[in-house]
Amino acid sequence: MPLHLDTSAPDFAAAFDRLLTMKREDSPDVDEAVAGIIADIRSRGDAALVELTARFDRWEAAPERLRLTEAEIDTAIAGVPAEESAALHLAAERIRAYHERQLPQDARWTDPAGAELGWRWGPVDAAGLYVPGGLASYPSSVLMNAVPAKVAGVDRLVVTVPTPDGALNPLVLLACRLAGVDEVWRVGGAQAIAALAYGTQSIAPVDKITGPGNAFVAAAKRRVFGKVGIDMIAGPSEILVIADGTCEPDWVALDLLSQAEHDESAQAILITPEAGVRDAVVAAVEHRLRTIERRAIAGRSWEAFGATILVRDLEEAAAISDRLAPEHLEICTADPEALLPRIRHAGAIFLGHWTPEAIGDYVGGPNHVLPTARSARFSSGLSVMDFVKRTTLARMTPGALAAIGPAAATLAGSESLQAHGLSVQARLDRLNER
Amino acid sequence: MPLHLDTSAPDFAAAFDRLLTMKREDSPDVDEAVAGIIADIRSRGDAALVELTARFDRWEAAPERLRLTEAEIDTAIAGVPAEESAALHLAAERIRAYHERQLPQDARWTDPAGAELGWRWGPVDAAGLYVPGGLASYPSSVLMNAVPAKVAGVDRLVVTVPTPDGALNPLVLLACRLAGVDEVWRVGGAQAIAALAYGTQSIAPVDKITGPGNAFVAAAKRRVFGKVGIDMIAGPSEILVIADGTCEPDWVALDLLSQAEHDESAQAILITPEAGVRDAVVAAVEHRLRTIERRAIAGRSWEAFGATILVRDLEEAAAISDRLAPEHLEICTADPEALLPRIRHAGAIFLGHWTPEAIGDYVGGPNHVLPTARSARFSSGLSVMDFVKRTTLARMTPGALAAIGPAAATLAGSESLQAHGLSVQARLDRLNER
Repeated sequence: MPLHLDTSAPDFAAAFDRLLTMKREDSPDVDEAVAGIIADIRSRGDAALVELTARFDRWEAAPERLRLTEAEIDTAIAGVPAEESAALHLAAERIRAYHERQLPQDARWTDPAGAELGWRWGPVDAAGLYVPGGLASYPSSVLMNAVPAKVAGVDRLVVTVPTPDGALNPLVLLACRLAGVDEVWRVGGAQAIAALAYGTQSIAPVDKITGPGNAFVAAAKRRVFGKVGIDMIAGPSEILVIADGTCEPDWVALDLLSQAEHDESAQAILITPEAGVRDAVVAAVEHRLRTIERRAIAGRSWEAFGATILVRDLEEAAAISDRLAPEHLEICTADPEALLPRIRHAGAIFLGHWTPEAIGDYVGGPNHVLPTARSARFSSGLSVMDFVKRTTLARMTPGALAAIGPAAATLAGSESLQAHGLSVQARLDRLNER
Repeated sequence: MPLHLDTSAPDFAAAFDRLLTMKREDSPDVDEAVAGIIADIRSRGDAALVELTARFDRWEAAPERLRLTEAEIDTAIAGVPAEESAALHLAAERIRAYHERQLPQDARWTDPAGAELGWRWGPVDAAGLYVPGGLASYPSSVLMNAVPAKVAGVDRLVVTVPTPDGALNPLVLLACRLAGVDEVWRVGGAQAIAALAYGTQSIAPVDKITGPGNAFVAAAKRRVFGKVGIDMIAGPSEILVIADGTCEPDWVALDLLSQAEHDESAQAILITPEAGVRDAVVAAVEHRLRTIERRAIAGRSWEAFGATILVRDLEEAAAISDRLAPEHLEICTADPEALLPRIRHAGAIFLGHWTPEAIGDYVGGPNHVLPTARSARFSSGLSVMDFVKRTTLARMTPGALAAIGPAAATLAGSESLQAHGLSVQARLDRLNER
């Protein structure tokens, strides 16, 4: 049964603490197996990649056939129904338009001391995007990872996607095409991550790896971090809905279930100041759970991790929400804008009754790769910023060095770093000779 | 002896590969010890913190005395000589001025479909800054970490600094004061990181931890990552100088040594198209190595990891530099601006003969916490961005939902996520009833 909390109840603090510290994920420890796979790819390259692909995906091909040709992609894409193709085009356009606004600006200026300062942004040279195979192979996730990379200016964008039993996912390939992916390789698991990070005879290494995956993929990403950059390791989905008496209980129920249906470990939480809303939404969830296709998964998520929290007012709702720092926050109230300034921690906020979270999963424009497990307290969703890096710039004139160099030499002395000080002082001495 | 390479030599590719893959760090495996310390702090809190501080720092105090009072800080700071105080003030002002320009902008707009989109940035609530004790306790590093956090708007900024044998570092405390640090705790090591991440009876937990430290601190940061955010785990310092015949060999030598003196594992590399420059700089390094205070450390770094690379021209110098992706890059040529567009990967660039890298360590303005070990290919130095996070915003009107909702429902169907589709469709049905 989902937890039903009430901030006015004497045991609320303890009950809320249990909710906050609830352990939802129990990742199998695959680290040793993953270490072995990475070592194998590093030492034997393509040969290991072919063998591991045959073993895990029950599909075998010579190394040069691991990469899909443009003709193979064309053929697969031709089978995508027009309605789905149009929907994916719309999604790609909207995601691109949103992310183009994220491109950071270079800067360069001369300060009062005469020092020329600034920074310059540039894309990573090559990025790898992991796309899961089978059921969790979502074309929308391809767009959410690949479009920001291309907007950032990544020159070489490589997708790895396992094709279990040789089956291709046409919509995933169309997403690759729409996003401008440069290479698609039919490999998966830890072996794909190792190949992206270290390269093989066929696959050139990349500088940054993003994208979701199972426990093996997550463990491999952790292991190659440092050699390449990685994005966050995402946990199970979360949604928190703050609703008042103006909400439509069935809509809120569907929004809660839209995250619960992702995963048995997903978490859906309702916060409301009205007991009537709580009861109506809970009833609607139970009603919908009788008929939705993924009712087994959604039902287990709701039973094990679902929760309702009855609060005194919407102000308290915002405070409670901030302590949970949810991945997705829906504000289904009469005046959602009024509550917005009170929220500090959430990956994405959906405002008002007409903004179901699912819009953000596909066509809203913002990214759907978002911080989970309360990490919205300190991190952000995927963006163009994940595919660029900043170089700082400094240029001193003799005058600028004369103005600020002595302070640097003094501090170098304080820190007992004599060569630091001498490197400044040697130049200052030259100026003094003039 | 440092490596001397020449891009025209037949064995260059192999020799450069050895330079690229040179292993400079051999961190002791302290992970098990660190896991024990973290568990101890989590279960016993302050009692464990006091015990571990007594054991490792040979200094014991009741929990309430672990935090420095403002009066204690005042007393310590009063002993700072005027010249050092003025230099630190200048550094703080310049670092603040530079980082204030990094504050990211919020955005909100209505797109052609009528959807209101945007994002909002906000600071993390609380950040912890680790400051090493003893020799590596650098007041400049306190400023480089603390100033960006306060510019970002972090409300509660906590410093932990071990005080071995009870000794305080007045300049570190002055840096804390100048940067606006809110709490200073006299604890260090893995126990300080654990206290920051999980809290104790006395220390409230933070959301993000930054700052350098020894192998124990680095291992502890890796372990608490996820519970809190962390910055990069910095490796040993690096400098790469590109010089032509207009350079001053002794200045370049001092710049190379200013990084070599940090650490026996530091790396200093010279790239030049002129054999005469190479020989003169190498001779100057050897000359300076006879007299500088930290000659033992700098000498071992230069012997083991130093290198010169003779190139055909400056264009090739830029290409070689990009493969090394250095932490610090100095361009000591007649026209440094001409080379700038050819460089893609470096943590920080110092332009021209009058810009020794050491200026950037103290008073230049840009941050001195920079990506090492070739990670400038995919990551950036510390900045205000490390202390803020972004929440994306979306608000649909009925018209916007009517325009883009059907595509979302279609894609949800493609991904077999029925509740996602229903959450959109239920609203579209209402619009169709109207």
